[in-house]
Amino acid sequence: MYRTHTCGELRSEHRGSRVTLAGWVQRSRDLGGMTFVDLRDRYGITQLVFNMDINRELCQHARKLSREFVIQVSGKVAERSNKNPKIPTGDIEILIEELNILNPAVIPPFTIEDETDGGDDLRMKYRYLDLRRPIMKKNIMLRHRMAQEVRKYMDSQGFIEVETPVLIKTTPEGARDFVVPSRMNRGQFYALPQSPQTFKQLLMVAGYDRYFQIVKCFRDEDLRADRQPEFTQIDCEMAFVERDDLLDAFEGLAKHLFKTILGVEVNYSFPKLPYDEAMENYGTDKPDLRFDMLIHDLTTLAKGKGFGIFDEAEYIGAICAVGCSEYSRKEVDAITAFVMRPQIGGKGLISVRINSDGTIKSSVDKYYQQEDLQSWVDMAGARPGDLLLLMAGNRHATLKALGELRLEMGNRLELRPDDLYKPLWVVDFPLLEWDEGTGRYYAMHHPFTSPKLDDMDKFATDPGKVKANAYDLVINGVEIGGGSVRIHDENLQKLMFKNLGLSEREAKEKFGFLMNAFRYGAPPHGGIAFGFDRWVALFAGLDSIRDVIAFPKNNAGRDVMIDTPSAISEEQFDELGIRLTD
Amino acid sequence: MYRTHTCGELRSEHRGSRVTLAGWVQRSRDLGGMTFVDLRDRYGITQLVFNMDINRELCQHARKLSREFVIQVSGKVAERSNKNPKIPTGDIEILIEELNILNPAVIPPFTIEDETDGGDDLRMKYRYLDLRRPIMKKNIMLRHRMAQEVRKYMDSQGFIEVETPVLIKTTPEGARDFVVPSRMNRGQFYALPQSPQTFKQLLMVAGYDRYFQIVKCFRDEDLRADRQPEFTQIDCEMAFVERDDLLDAFEGLAKHLFKTILGVEVNYSFPKLPYDEAMENYGTDKPDLRFDMLIHDLTTLAKGKGFGIFDEAEYIGAICAVGCSEYSRKEVDAITAFVMRPQIGGKGLISVRINSDGTIKSSVDKYYQQEDLQSWVDMAGARPGDLLLLMAGNRHATLKALGELRLEMGNRLELRPDDLYKPLWVVDFPLLEWDEGTGRYYAMHHPFTSPKLDDMDKFATDPGKVKANAYDLVINGVEIGGGSVRIHDENLQKLMFKNLGLSEREAKEKFGFLMNAFRYGAPPHGGIAFGFDRWVALFAGLDSIRDVIAFPKNNAGRDVMIDTPSAISEEQFDELGIRLTD
Repeated sequence: MYRTHTCGELRSEHRGSRVTLAGWVQRSRDLGGMTFVDLRDRYGITQLVFNMDINRELCQHARKLSREFVIQVSGKVAERSNKNPKIPTGDIEILIEELNILNPAVIPPFTIEDETDGGDDLRMKYRYLDLRRPIMKKNIMLRHRMAQEVRKYMDSQGFIEVETPVLIKTTPEGARDFVVPSRMNRGQFYALPQSPQTFKQLLMVAGYDRYFQIVKCFRDEDLRADRQPEFTQIDCEMAFVERDDLLDAFEGLAKHLFKTILGVEVNYSFPKLPYDEAMENYGTDKPDLRFDMLIHDLTTLAKGKGFGIFDEAEYIGAICAVGCSEYSRKEVDAITAFVMRPQIGGKGLISVRINSDGTIKSSVDKYYQQEDLQSWVDMAGARPGDLLLLMAGNRHATLKALGELRLEMGNRLELRPDDLYKPLWVVDFPLLEWDEGTGRYYAMHHPFTSPKLDDMDKFATDPGKVKANAYDLVINGVEIGGGSVRIHDENLQKLMFKNLGLSEREAKEKFGFLMNAFRYGAPPHGGIAFGFDRWVALFAGLDSIRDVIAFPKNNAGRDVMIDTPSAISEEQFDELGIRLTD
Repeated sequence: MYRTHTCGELRSEHRGSRVTLAGWVQRSRDLGGMTFVDLRDRYGITQLVFNMDINRELCQHARKLSREFVIQVSGKVAERSNKNPKIPTGDIEILIEELNILNPAVIPPFTIEDETDGGDDLRMKYRYLDLRRPIMKKNIMLRHRMAQEVRKYMDSQGFIEVETPVLIKTTPEGARDFVVPSRMNRGQFYALPQSPQTFKQLLMVAGYDRYFQIVKCFRDEDLRADRQPEFTQIDCEMAFVERDDLLDAFEGLAKHLFKTILGVEVNYSFPKLPYDEAMENYGTDKPDLRFDMLIHDLTTLAKGKGFGIFDEAEYIGAICAVGCSEYSRKEVDAITAFVMRPQIGGKGLISVRINSDGTIKSSVDKYYQQEDLQSWVDMAGARPGDLLLLMAGNRHATLKALGELRLEMGNRLELRPDDLYKPLWVVDFPLLEWDEGTGRYYAMHHPFTSPKLDDMDKFATDPGKVKANAYDLVINGVEIGGGSVRIHDENLQKLMFKNLGLSEREAKEKFGFLMNAFRYGAPPHGGIAFGFDRWVALFAGLDSIRDVIAFPKNNAGRDVMIDTPSAISEEQFDELGIRLTD
């Protein structure tokens, strides 16, 4: 062993003991006859002292150490005269008697500190140095801790972790698959799983009753800011359960993580908000419940008074920004500019100030009487000192834009604190979404989701109206997981594929094994898949999942550290029986 | 919830309670006015009783249930008159009042019992039915249990589980890679990892100190009987340690699994057997230590007495089969036939009987005096009643054949009981193996393995003589894991690649990131990878890993259940910019 203790371990009580430490030179300072070195490892930082008077040669040796050198030192633990209360080892230092350079280091391309001067590209290229930064270590260790607690909890609830295969079959539904040419079966391909969906359902058919897995999944999508081609799910499935049994079980997992990871006791049932209500009240299917500021429908009140934009709108809605009646023109302009950004897509913003004296002043005063405006104020529950913000247009788009505006105002008013967590279930999603482009329905969740029993009669005749027995777990405006009660009946599954425009032949070719399995005694079942990367990021207080993944890809799907993807050899092409298109 | 209890839960103390169960019909028997149904779920089997006198209609309904129907029943728990001590629920039965068929089932293609009539192909095609058999459930649950215990132990020892990427880079060393064409980087490919080797070393460079992962790995090899294209490793790495620190840490894991999974306390240090000794004494680098029967070198004693086969042999060796002196001619012939099988490759077998009166009788009496034979007997430590079995020829091949013969005799003499476990470390492997075919060295472990310090001077001049700082964990003749102290010096790593015939350009292109990382302060480090599938199979008492994998591939690399690999669409070819070779 290269050490007797770690760099995070020594305290005053070790005073006088002879110890050996090993680690990286964080920094070194020469002060008169002394040289101080901060030695770092995963566990912490310990101060080393070299004294010119005691051992000149050793001290001179120490003065040649640069940042990130790997060294081994031995010496005596001493109480510091100048204690550092910021670190757990701050009461002591080591008076060094022996120094051994285990590996020198060239100057790193950026500083190895939380506040680094390294840009994204450089940090990705030297990811092994980036991962040395304490903040990155904290993220990766949080991820480990969460994975452990997930497994501990699921195991305690009788769930079995079963590994499902990575080399599976390409399917026509969902996102684009990554494929893997087979050498032993020339001309044929495996696909990497977008999720272990069909396998976990087969495990329910096989009687495994409660399954989970923390598992890598793959999607060959054009990468938006926060997508990765490979990502990790907490994948779960249960048999002989109804929707609320599923929600209870997975809510238990969430509460366990809140408690063990964050020390937050959530001792209420997560609210269950129907999709339609979420859209109407929050303009999104993943509402942030840390603050209210609901969207109010003013369509009936505000139409027909001669204001063209409103009169022509399908929908007029408003949010009430509490205490913002005195916003300056500049501030209102900034909010207007926000909603008019292309990604929000608003056409404009109408503001209504409710002055502290109760009078109301709007930007559309010439079209509306005070009573009209008062009716809006009443509908929105606004009070003196508040500011109403109205948008109008196509219903769906306007609700979405108001939802974005709501979040923006939440930020401005600091209503979204990092240390407050508001989980909820969004339920009763539509089963299908119509796509104008391809002229067909797509499954909103996936094609194995059961329609709600009440809507079953509409399924063959009016599938667009059918609600799904599906649910999402949303925390602070972030979708953490989604699941559903599954179809477990062969004929219903066939009908579902038909509604999705799959021919009988296609359905059989791609999912015949599943429909066949349903004929041999399939239990009622359902489950969920949580986005593990996202959950860790949420708990780490991060917006991006990239910082909770040890070795992520960049937006072009490249790992610039190992430089992949890359060319393969002629021999590999020959063996696989493929070649590049000219 | 479809049930109040599972099928493994009810006992006498529940007598009189009204319960609801759900599960599969294991079998049903009509006896006079009663119908008995065994209801099965993951947790057990419970007997249901339908009584013609009490509810004729219900009983007639029950008589229509076939095997594997999924049903839900409610009724009262009653004490059985005819108890079944073989199952935990054998004291009770349920007097059924309600029956609800949740899903009917067609007749399964084989019986869902431990002793099944289903052949391998049929079981693979209907894997979801095969997995219903209690023995398969036991295997899969054992796997879960072991994975949990591995994680619990590694976590308790300060190891962090870090997920390494699946989409990595093809490398020139090792087995053949599976590759994944990149759509976003046309003409380029990812590779699936054969192991996370370089990433775990980078994690050590990054200061993570103790890493582990239970992780899928991939090898595109022609599949022998017990290989899978995707398999699972317990992958571990530690920094600031020397070899024995590593062995201690991983031995701790093995002991933890022995104790928690098998209830076996191993309270001794695993023996450390050098590779050369293992080869000399057991004819293999993975000796089964459940029995002795060492190989003895008789070369000096047996040569030069005029027996041509021995005189020409490079090596003559023997094992002593205790108590076998009275083996019949037929038995000796059978053993001879065994060693002459092509996969063993023996040229013949000489037997020497040590009769109970001390006289010695051999099949080569005309070439040797009794004193000669006695010297063999003495050398082999044989005693009256024993049988010496001799083989001769090329040293390496003969030792290997004697090793196989030793195992065969161990089987015949029942010296290899399933419930005895003899773990050991095999150490001091050769660093390199010379391959005549390609005229170059290959790394016996892998190219990141450090030479032993004592041999470092030979590394540049006589690399074939250098021992590696590598080790295997062997239990009962099965190699469970292998690891090494790694190279952590850029120049030594360069020299290693040079010895392996990689050009500087190639080495830089493929492993430049790792050698570069070594320049920024790499700590001494080492690790191991355990074959998780094999370890589970060993603990399950199985020879094949296929029965501890939920959804394995067959020998052609196919999953016949989902029918993959399979064709991909023209659109997929176009998007990826590849096509099949004509």
